[in-house]
Amino acid sequence: VGATEFELIRHFTAPFGAPRPPSGPGDDCAVLPPARGQLCVTTDAVVEGVHFTRRHFSFEDIGHKALAVNLSDLASMGARPSWFVCAIALPGGIEVDGVRAMARGMARLARANRVALVGGNFTRAPQLSLTLTAAGEVPKGAALLRGGGRAGDALYVSGVLGDARLGLACLGMERAPHAQARQRRPQPRVRLGLLARRFATACIDVSDGLAGDLGHLRKASRAGAEVDLGRLPVSRELRAAAADDAWRWALSGGEDYELLLAVPELRARAFERACRAARERVTRVGRLTRGTALVFRHPGGHPVRAPRSFDHFAQFDGAVSQS
Amino acid sequence: VGATEFELIRHFTAPFGAPRPPSGPGDDCAVLPPARGQLCVTTDAVVEGVHFTRRHFSFEDIGHKALAVNLSDLASMGARPSWFVCAIALPGGIEVDGVRAMARGMARLARANRVALVGGNFTRAPQLSLTLTAAGEVPKGAALLRGGGRAGDALYVSGVLGDARLGLACLGMERAPHAQARQRRPQPRVRLGLLARRFATACIDVSDGLAGDLGHLRKASRAGAEVDLGRLPVSRELRAAAADDAWRWALSGGEDYELLLAVPELRARAFERACRAARERVTRVGRLTRGTALVFRHPGGHPVRAPRSFDHFAQFDGAVSQS
Repeated sequence: VGATEFELIRHFTAPFGAPRPPSGPGDDCAVLPPARGQLCVTTDAVVEGVHFTRRHFSFEDIGHKALAVNLSDLASMGARPSWFVCAIALPGGIEVDGVRAMARGMARLARANRVALVGGNFTRAPQLSLTLTAAGEVPKGAALLRGGGRAGDALYVSGVLGDARLGLACLGMERAPHAQARQRRPQPRVRLGLLARRFATACIDVSDGLAGDLGHLRKASRAGAEVDLGRLPVSRELRAAAADDAWRWALSGGEDYELLLAVPELRARAFERACRAARERVTRVGRLTRGTALVFRHPGGHPVRAPRSFDHFAQFDGAVSQS
Repeated sequence: VGATEFELIRHFTAPFGAPRPPSGPGDDCAVLPPARGQLCVTTDAVVEGVHFTRRHFSFEDIGHKALAVNLSDLASMGARPSWFVCAIALPGGIEVDGVRAMARGMARLARANRVALVGGNFTRAPQLSLTLTAAGEVPKGAALLRGGGRAGDALYVSGVLGDARLGLACLGMERAPHAQARQRRPQPRVRLGLLARRFATACIDVSDGLAGDLGHLRKASRAGAEVDLGRLPVSRELRAAAADDAWRWALSGGEDYELLLAVPELRARAFERACRAARERVTRVGRLTRGTALVFRHPGGHPVRAPRSFDHFAQFDGAVSQS
C-alpha cells in the first residue's frame, strides 16, 4: 500500500532541516512572523507530461525545477525569498525513495536561496505534479513591477536565451548537455533581482519566451520596444545547433527563467558595473520606445513590425515579433 | 483548441471583483502590504476522483470546496482570512463556462469571508485539480495551535459530525440531501475560530475524522483524552440513516471541517455563552486527561482504551479508538 501521508511528510521534510520559528510544518497552518516589508507572493505548478517527464527528469530535477520556477517569479520582483509551501499530487507508483529525491533536489536550491519550507500537502493523483506557493519580501515601494518602464530605458536580459528550448529538443540524446541541464535545472536569478532593484524601472522573468514576455512588459509600461536580434545572448551549444537561426530559439524559446530588465539610460553604466562586480551576466538587447510597437531588428538589416499575435515557435517566419 | 491562459485568467478573476492594493493578479507576483500580526499559511488541494467527481459535484461546488478546505485550516488557528492564491490544473474538455462556474462558487465563499484572490496559475493536466494557498492574520502569540491543551480542559466540537461522510455515501441518491450538501459545500468555521481565540488553549479542524484529529491534538498537547460517544453531535439525517451506529460515522467520518477545541474548565461557561450569542453551535464531548490514553466511552457503558492505530471506517468494531 505504500507509505502513509505522515511518513511521506516526514521523508519529504527531512532534507530541509529544522523549520524556522515560531512554527513550521506540523500544525494546521504555518505561523510566520510579520514581514518587515511588502510581501511578494507567487504560485506555480510543474506537471508530469507538461513540464517534465519521468523518463528524462530525475526526481531531484523535478524537485529543483518546481522551486526554481517559483523563485524566478520572486527574482523578477526584486524580492528576497522568505518561505514557500509545497503541495504534491503523487501517483501510486512513486515510493519513498522518489519523494526523498524530490525533496533533496528542492532542498539544495532552497538552501542556496535561504528560503524555508514552512508547509505542504500530499494528495493521491494519477499524475505527478508539484504546486508551490512562494513568498519574498521587498522594502515598501521597491518591488520591481512590469509596468514601471519608460520610453528610452535600455533593455537587458540575464544569462543566455534559448538553451532550455534546445535542451527540451535534445532530451535523451547525447547532444547539448549544458542546454539539457538548463531545461532540467533552471537557475532563478534571485541575486540579480535584488541587485537590479537599485537600478531597474521594470522587470519580468522570461518564462514564455522573450518575445512574449517583452510584450507583457511593454504593454504594462505603456511603451513600445525595439530589440536588436543580433545582440541576443546565446550559448555556444545553441549557435552550433541552430547557426543563423539561433536568435529564433532565443526569442521564442520558453523556460529560460532569465530576467528582462528596463534600466534608465543614465543608470545603465552603473548597472553594468554592478553586474560585473557581482558576476551576474547581463546583455543589453534593445530599448523601450515611444508608442506601442514591438520591433525586432534582424541581424542583417531592416526593422520588422510586430504582427498581432505570437504564440508558438511554429508561427515563426522571416518577420518575428509580437503585438 | 479552447481559451488561452490569459482568457482563462480573465474569466476566472471576473467574479472576484477588483484586487486589493497595492497589486493583485497580473504581475509576476502579487504584492501585499505587510501583515500587522503573525501570518498563518496553509496549502490544500482538491483533486478530481479523490475529493470530488464531476458527476456528483457542480463546478460551483468544486470551487467552493477548494477554498473551504483551506479556510477551515485558517479557522482552526483562529486566523482572520486575508488572501489566497489558486492554481488550477485544467483538463482539455473543460471550457470557459466551467471555469467561470468554479470561480463563482469560490468567489461567493471568498466574499462571505472577506478573503481576496491575489494570484493564481493555470496549467493543462489530464485531471482537474485546484491547489490553493491561503493566509490569515492573528495578533502576536494568539494563533490557536494544536499543542496548547492541558489535562482538565473541556473538549468541544462545532456543528455536527459525520454528515459529510453520510453525504459521500448518498451522492446521486435521493437520500440525506442536507448531508450531501455538507459533502459538496463544507462550511469553514472562520467566525468560531476568531471567537474561540479568546477562550481555547488548542484547536484543530476535523478533516480526517474526529478520532484521528483528536489524536493529533492530544499528542501535540502531551495529554490524554476522553470522549463520551453518546454526546457526539449528529444530524437527524445521520441518526435516521445509522441509528445506534451514528457515533461511528461521527467519529471517523472525514471531511467534516468542524473545529475541535480545548477550553479550560474555568472558561467553559463563558465560552458556551459567547458561542450562543454568536449563534455558533458547539457541543461539549469530553476532556483532556493526564497521561497519553485516548479513551472513547460507549453510549451504554464502560471505557475502551485505544488500540495502536486507526485509519479507516473498515477497522471499526466494538472497541473504537486511536493511539
